[in-house]
Amino acid sequence: MAGEKVYGLHTVRTLLARAPERVLRLYLQQGRADQRATQLERLARDAHRPVERVDAARLRGWVGEAAHQGVVAEVRALGPLSEDDFYTQLATAAEPLVLALDGVQDPHNLGACLRTADACGVLAVVVPRDRAAPLNATARKVAAGAAETTPVVTVTNLSRSLQLIKDAGLWIVGADPAAPQRAQDVDLRGGRCLVMGAEGSGMRDLTRRNCDWLVSLPSFGAVESLNVSVATGMLLYEALRQRRA
Amino acid sequence: MAGEKVYGLHTVRTLLARAPERVLRLYLQQGRADQRATQLERLARDAHRPVERVDAARLRGWVGEAAHQGVVAEVRALGPLSEDDFYTQLATAAEPLVLALDGVQDPHNLGACLRTADACGVLAVVVPRDRAAPLNATARKVAAGAAETTPVVTVTNLSRSLQLIKDAGLWIVGADPAAPQRAQDVDLRGGRCLVMGAEGSGMRDLTRRNCDWLVSLPSFGAVESLNVSVATGMLLYEALRQRRA
Repeated sequence: MAGEKVYGLHTVRTLLARAPERVLRLYLQQGRADQRATQLERLARDAHRPVERVDAARLRGWVGEAAHQGVVAEVRALGPLSEDDFYTQLATAAEPLVLALDGVQDPHNLGACLRTADACGVLAVVVPRDRAAPLNATARKVAAGAAETTPVVTVTNLSRSLQLIKDAGLWIVGADPAAPQRAQDVDLRGGRCLVMGAEGSGMRDLTRRNCDWLVSLPSFGAVESLNVSVATGMLLYEALRQRRA
Repeated sequence: MAGEKVYGLHTVRTLLARAPERVLRLYLQQGRADQRATQLERLARDAHRPVERVDAARLRGWVGEAAHQGVVAEVRALGPLSEDDFYTQLATAAEPLVLALDGVQDPHNLGACLRTADACGVLAVVVPRDRAAPLNATARKVAAGAAETTPVVTVTNLSRSLQLIKDAGLWIVGADPAAPQRAQDVDLRGGRCLVMGAEGSGMRDLTRRNCDWLVSLPSFGAVESLNVSVATGMLLYEALRQRRA
């Protein structure tokens, strides 16, 4: 099976530095001989990864109009993280930030949430098996490489999983438009699992009952609710803001 | 010309309350006779708007899988706001929040930014004529009704427009991944125009030079940058957080 294509100097450099064994091949645009391309090539060769020069049309054929910066890597797709491995990682992580998506069934939204989770340093994204968008080509494309760096944990029973996440010392914070408390009024420092519900219907009742806090996000407008990936971005932003204050 | 279809109890109620003359026809799902549907019907009839009962299949044909809640309205599309009218509105608005998009050329991203701008109470969204995504059917659909409530101002010269926005008493704050200051470290209360650049290339130099402050947003990940609509959501969230602190 061919690998997934990821692109962009920063994304490819991060992958070569963090998980070189997953980079199957590095493609650099012909004619690029600047310092950053040279460094990337050296990084790949040091890790015994094959490097190939290709023309711009071929890069564009792979990634479309995205800003590839003359750099594409073929990578072994990040496999799903098993539940057991996830809890083991939780137990040793310092102040982990986890994102759980309850009922996000659109692959486009899943990909967008993964991209945001990656930018915000989320340890893993938890999705229930029965109500989850598939991590398919659409989701991976929208994630813009984040599907190859931020692990997705598919769990059989989200409610039970939230209990185990609590047992690992995290607090569960759910986003709910009707919550009286705002995100900024709740302490989001330390180990936290942030839970987002489906667009329209929100979290399931059982999920909601597992939350230690429910928090609201801005909603002054005519339109009913925020897009779930934007709401995810706002809640993760608030968590990081508090941690860096 | 047929109007645009908007849907959802909250969106339609807001339109009927704020701008009933723009609602051409209210469609309610057959069989809905609950209190909220009855109130909506009364609101429409009081404003002399025609009301029609239709079956669920017809609603679904119009809005697809979106959560319409048995309520769809056909509305006269919100026309573009002229530059002159925009500056007039700015001069009288209390602590206005304006969003400017420099180089957002994907209609999907424009629609997502409009939806977020609506939720955050933005007065208007400013886009340059020569580098803007068209406010087409894709953008309107992604905006989920917000294109009918939040005006878009298309300006010939963004740099000159930012000067006029400054003259109206607003400060210009641009999002820039390389900025040393974080959004949370800058005062975003009062009249502010937030400027987002294109994905990949960012703001143009001339736009950047018009900013009073440049601020960064979280970026810890492997992926190069946040999606522009998510970044917009984070910066608007921060502005509202400070205003409500």
